[in-house]
Amino acid sequence: MTSILKVGIVGGTGYSGVELLRLLTHHPRVQIHAVTSRTEAGRPVSTLFPNLRGHLDCVFTQPTQANLVECDIVFFATPNGTAMHSTPDLLEAGVKVIDLSADFRIKDVKIWEKWYGMAHHCPDLIAEAVYGLPEWNRDEIVTARLIANPGCYPTAVQLGFLPLLQAGLIDPQYLIADAKSGASGAGRKANIGTLMGEMGESFKAYSASGHRHWPEICQSLHQYAGTPVDFTFVPHLIPMIRGIEATLYTRLLEDISLDDIQACFVKYYQNEPFVDILPVQSHPETRNVRGVNMCHLSIHRPQNNKTLVILSVIDNLVKGAAGQAIQNMNIMSGFPETTGLTGVALLP
Amino acid sequence: MTSILKVGIVGGTGYSGVELLRLLTHHPRVQIHAVTSRTEAGRPVSTLFPNLRGHLDCVFTQPTQANLVECDIVFFATPNGTAMHSTPDLLEAGVKVIDLSADFRIKDVKIWEKWYGMAHHCPDLIAEAVYGLPEWNRDEIVTARLIANPGCYPTAVQLGFLPLLQAGLIDPQYLIADAKSGASGAGRKANIGTLMGEMGESFKAYSASGHRHWPEICQSLHQYAGTPVDFTFVPHLIPMIRGIEATLYTRLLEDISLDDIQACFVKYYQNEPFVDILPVQSHPETRNVRGVNMCHLSIHRPQNNKTLVILSVIDNLVKGAAGQAIQNMNIMSGFPETTGLTGVALLP
Amino acid sequence: MTSILKVGIVGGTGYSGVELLRLLTHHPRVQIHAVTSRTEAGRPVSTLFPNLRGHLDCVFTQPTQANLVECDIVFFATPNGTAMHSTPDLLEAGVKVIDLSADFRIKDVKIWEKWYGMAHHCPDLIAEAVYGLPEWNRDEIVTARLIANPGCYPTAVQLGFLPLLQAGLIDPQYLIADAKSGASGAGRKANIGTLMGEMGESFKAYSASGHRHWPEICQSLHQYAGTPVDFTFVPHLIPMIRGIEATLYTRLLEDISLDDIQACFVKYYQNEPFVDILPVQSHPETRNVRGVNMCHLSIHRPQNNKTLVILSVIDNLVKGAAGQAIQNMNIMSGFPETTGLTGVALLP
Amino acid sequence: MTSILKVGIVGGTGYSGVELLRLLTHHPRVQIHAVTSRTEAGRPVSTLFPNLRGHLDCVFTQPTQANLVECDIVFFATPNGTAMHSTPDLLEAGVKVIDLSADFRIKDVKIWEKWYGMAHHCPDLIAEAVYGLPEWNRDEIVTARLIANPGCYPTAVQLGFLPLLQAGLIDPQYLIADAKSGASGAGRKANIGTLMGEMGESFKAYSASGHRHWPEICQSLHQYAGTPVDFTFVPHLIPMIRGIEATLYTRLLEDISLDDIQACFVKYYQNEPFVDILPVQSHPETRNVRGVNMCHLSIHRPQNNKTLVILSVIDNLVKGAAGQAIQNMNIMSGFPETTGLTGVALLP
Repeated sequence: MTSILKVGIVGGTGYSGVELLRLLTHHPRVQIHAVTSRTEAGRPVSTLFPNLRGHLDCVFTQPTQANLVECDIVFFATPNGTAMHSTPDLLEAGVKVIDLSADFRIKDVKIWEKWYGMAHHCPDLIAEAVYGLPEWNRDEIVTARLIANPGCYPTAVQLGFLPLLQAGLIDPQYLIADAKSGASGAGRKANIGTLMGEMGESFKAYSASGHRHWPEICQSLHQYAGTPVDFTFVPHLIPMIRGIEATLYTRLLEDISLDDIQACFVKYYQNEPFVDILPVQSHPETRNVRGVNMCHLSIHRPQNNKTLVILSVIDNLVKGAAGQAIQNMNIMSGFPETTGLTGVALLP
Repeated sequence: MTSILKVGIVGGTGYSGVELLRLLTHHPRVQIHAVTSRTEAGRPVSTLFPNLRGHLDCVFTQPTQANLVECDIVFFATPNGTAMHSTPDLLEAGVKVIDLSADFRIKDVKIWEKWYGMAHHCPDLIAEAVYGLPEWNRDEIVTARLIANPGCYPTAVQLGFLPLLQAGLIDPQYLIADAKSGASGAGRKANIGTLMGEMGESFKAYSASGHRHWPEICQSLHQYAGTPVDFTFVPHLIPMIRGIEATLYTRLLEDISLDDIQACFVKYYQNEPFVDILPVQSHPETRNVRGVNMCHLSIHRPQNNKTLVILSVIDNLVKGAAGQAIQNMNIMSGFPETTGLTGVALLP
Repeated sequence: MTSILKVGIVGGTGYSGVELLRLLTHHPRVQIHAVTSRTEAGRPVSTLFPNLRGHLDCVFTQPTQANLVECDIVFFATPNGTAMHSTPDLLEAGVKVIDLSADFRIKDVKIWEKWYGMAHHCPDLIAEAVYGLPEWNRDEIVTARLIANPGCYPTAVQLGFLPLLQAGLIDPQYLIADAKSGASGAGRKANIGTLMGEMGESFKAYSASGHRHWPEICQSLHQYAGTPVDFTFVPHLIPMIRGIEATLYTRLLEDISLDDIQACFVKYYQNEPFVDILPVQSHPETRNVRGVNMCHLSIHRPQNNKTLVILSVIDNLVKGAAGQAIQNMNIMSGFPETTGLTGVALLP
Repeated sequence: MTSILKVGIVGGTGYSGVELLRLLTHHPRVQIHAVTSRTEAGRPVSTLFPNLRGHLDCVFTQPTQANLVECDIVFFATPNGTAMHSTPDLLEAGVKVIDLSADFRIKDVKIWEKWYGMAHHCPDLIAEAVYGLPEWNRDEIVTARLIANPGCYPTAVQLGFLPLLQAGLIDPQYLIADAKSGASGAGRKANIGTLMGEMGESFKAYSASGHRHWPEICQSLHQYAGTPVDFTFVPHLIPMIRGIEATLYTRLLEDISLDDIQACFVKYYQNEPFVDILPVQSHPETRNVRGVNMCHLSIHRPQNNKTLVILSVIDNLVKGAAGQAIQNMNIMSGFPETTGLTGVALLP
């Protein structure tokens, strides 16, 4: 008998929420038990998101504990600072939690509190939380009760540096990520800055002096390198909806050929279903992964210099959020890891 | 034993072609036997369309008869004037043909030749060809050898007028379709007019004095009304990729309430899996059907006047092309009509 | 001696406001005396709108009467319902007012109050207010104290119907405007519906059952025709920033050739600097008028039928708002009408 | 008596060409004498570019020598490899030449021939050609006969590194430019890669292993630093039309405060009308310079580390092409440098 997982989604009105719903409505091992929203409670989900008409027949509910403890797993697709309030009781009740927000990503609570500007509600759970990047720590995910689902930029950046740092091929004091994201990364909330009239037909860097994803990435790169790193991160806003592209710059420690570097990546990711190493000197495009749980990577070494360039693209809402969360859910539940995640990207 | 259909796709390098591939790679009853391209023969399909990496392991081949006669069904996703040359031999060989181009859509060959500017190669097959709009003539499709898959604009427009004309509620001498399409409708070919630099951040009507889809729509509306119609059609170009919106204007023959009109639509399409009548006075958005084989319709009667407004949206590449072609294939093959067509639209 | 006009702008933080500033900073007869904003008072205007760096050295102020009565003319670029509160005192103080909002556009105050959902604060001034469409009533504008600057859709629609209704060539019971606008028409305010993530890559009709610009247009068309009209209006949202395209449908009363209709337009607008009749069967593009005070019109008569199609494009922020306001200011001030309005559209 | 310059534009059908026309039609010291195009000869310019209707009453002509030698200055807005064929005769005839293409930008003809894949037609003129970046070498431009107008990326990148290299504050062995351009940079030519359907709603790096602007930038940075540099350059394509953003990464040689770095920029560009240093830690947006001859720069030093981040934006068609060409023309002609270049950027 095939078991069916009862899942809850807290914060179902945002882009990560509707993306979870898009992917989960056709997941063969999942039953959507509750989709909560304080502001939309009582309203059919498909009136807010008509793409779900005919696919999901449920109503937003208040995020009450009673409702959520009936679930096997609860996803938090909420603003930062929300999940940490409900998580202790859910875990206590035996419900697993996958948090798509940043509440449990940073191990050093002081750093977290500095960057997120609030006190942490359950610092004792931070140590238990498992950072959910399966390509790095799948084994820990298997047995986790609480997953800190990685940020979108961090996913794109880490997957590009991970094999090189593990192999010791690059200088950990020379790591730069020039990252670009579509508008959906800023969420579905009323905000002048992400109006079509403000960000259409324009491009800019933002938070260049410091972005919350910087400490998250530093923490991981430190682990991969086994030593503190010097890492610079500048995010940018692309006038489009979905997709992240990260162009990574680093320096080779010794003169190793591009083919050998390529081989290093191919080997590292050889069993990974959701990381695809393109042929050397390819140029990944965000549209090639639109709507799917996939990271495309390619490697360049311009003029055969010491500086290495890695190009990484993901869909920020899928491998950068909802898709990776489901990948973690599959791992935690003993399902084949690709269950429900085998779609083809929408091109064009 | 479940039969597997061997399909061929002629003209696999265009947008309809890659969309057929996206949808067919996961169709449970289909095996892709041949994807042809004169210009790309020998090249792996997934190097041209990296969204297919890991999903389709085949190479473009020359469109030879030998290759194609091994198929059960061949799709033509070619420019107008190509399918008509290969179709006679394929039918002769027992291969069914679904033509996504316009070669077999117009019953009056003189009209076809006038609008398409060439002589028809096999006028004798035109009568046999079945116009593939299942919501109108599903029964004929079941037994067809040759399907003329409807144009994108014609699909959006016809589905909006069909119930009203059949019910005799509107004046067939007062039919207007103001239609708008994304850039993918113009195809994937080098062309200054559809460059991002030319059509980005701009909007315009085109072919306002006469577009090839006008005679196709007229022919159908005539059938639905049982009388010649006076129909005006103006297409426009939207600065985006996918989606058609058609705003239809007509006049009520008698004073019938909006609720009754709504009921007429609901009843007409009650068993249709791919036409969805939104609540009265809704505003369908193209994104709500992005990537899926679906038409969303809604009805307005401003100021309770005699003029009726019907809003219709489809994805031009799916219900307007590849999806509808697969729907026809399912019907012709005895598969459940929704097989392989149950995805959720990509929103946002 | 050349007189310099002191102008004030109330509501300088919206799109019409910044567009007034862009155009007025280089107007040779104007000095910008006050730019007001309740929320931004004290902040240099160019920190909010860096395109004005080096062009405008002033600070947002509170919209106090003291400040504004020193002006010769005050523009209201405010939400509906604001201008009517300050206008009586300004007029009393001898300041002329150009209201870019809708407060004084509708002559029948009951209709205004119904559509705008509030009581009018100074109904006695409505009769005095002059509707500022120079191509219709330039003479009245010359001597006006209070201008109701036309709406964006109304401008595009009226200029297309005006010559035909005046000439009595078309049926006033058969008037349809299918209009489309870029996102800037919705203003610069925090709003989920006009986020890039919501309206990017999508197209939809809105307010199809009734939009506030409908009574405004009806009122004018009635005047042009000399008889009540049957007019249907459906607005749509284009995934871009600037530009309105209106496709107008009407029916000829008699069989008049396209060339004669063209001649009618050319003659009507022969002395108009801001209306340009394109060659017959052209397709105006919104980008061709981006950033300039211009309306491009063209005429089609598909299949030589009775139905006539007029295509009209403007920049909603210029001929549809700030540019037309300055045109009115020029007329009221005895300046050459094109002063400060001679730029070339930004293409591409 | 004010002299009027007779100018010719060779290659008037591309984006740089139409931008020259947009700017020059209102330049008070210029008369447009000839606009040439092999393919469009005989056609009124304003039928191809309707934004010029009413502003420019001339016809495309064949690019004959007879026509061009009557000019005082000829702009080449042609593909690479064209200007070098006509330039010797024009200079001989006393006509000054401003080449917007790359024919005269690289001093080492072997490097030029390697990157541009053709033999140079007049290598003897390369030494005489003056690289037209006024902020670097205004004095040479004053007396030049032949200007090599800088590339778009090179302009954005050089202006960001120039003050730092001149001041000796940064390590010339650590220079990275992650640059992004809108579609107009690829020109107005039929090309699948820059179709709306291909590059809309997507983002990618291209030419990451080597782009033609790399040697051009290297040559200049070498001069500014007085020593060979280690420079890495990765261009990207933004789904929009106009604008370049370059994010520059370098390393400080000593611990100098952000305020002192800012002061270095402010001082270097204090007399420059077309370079604007934003307040420290600002984020320049491409829209703030849309349509104008301006570079906005800002500086960041994340976490007060050694790595410095400089953000640079220009409009690729203006400061990156036509505007800078006119700036050079003004300098060569003794006009005030800002003549005809004082517009305000189109925002939104």
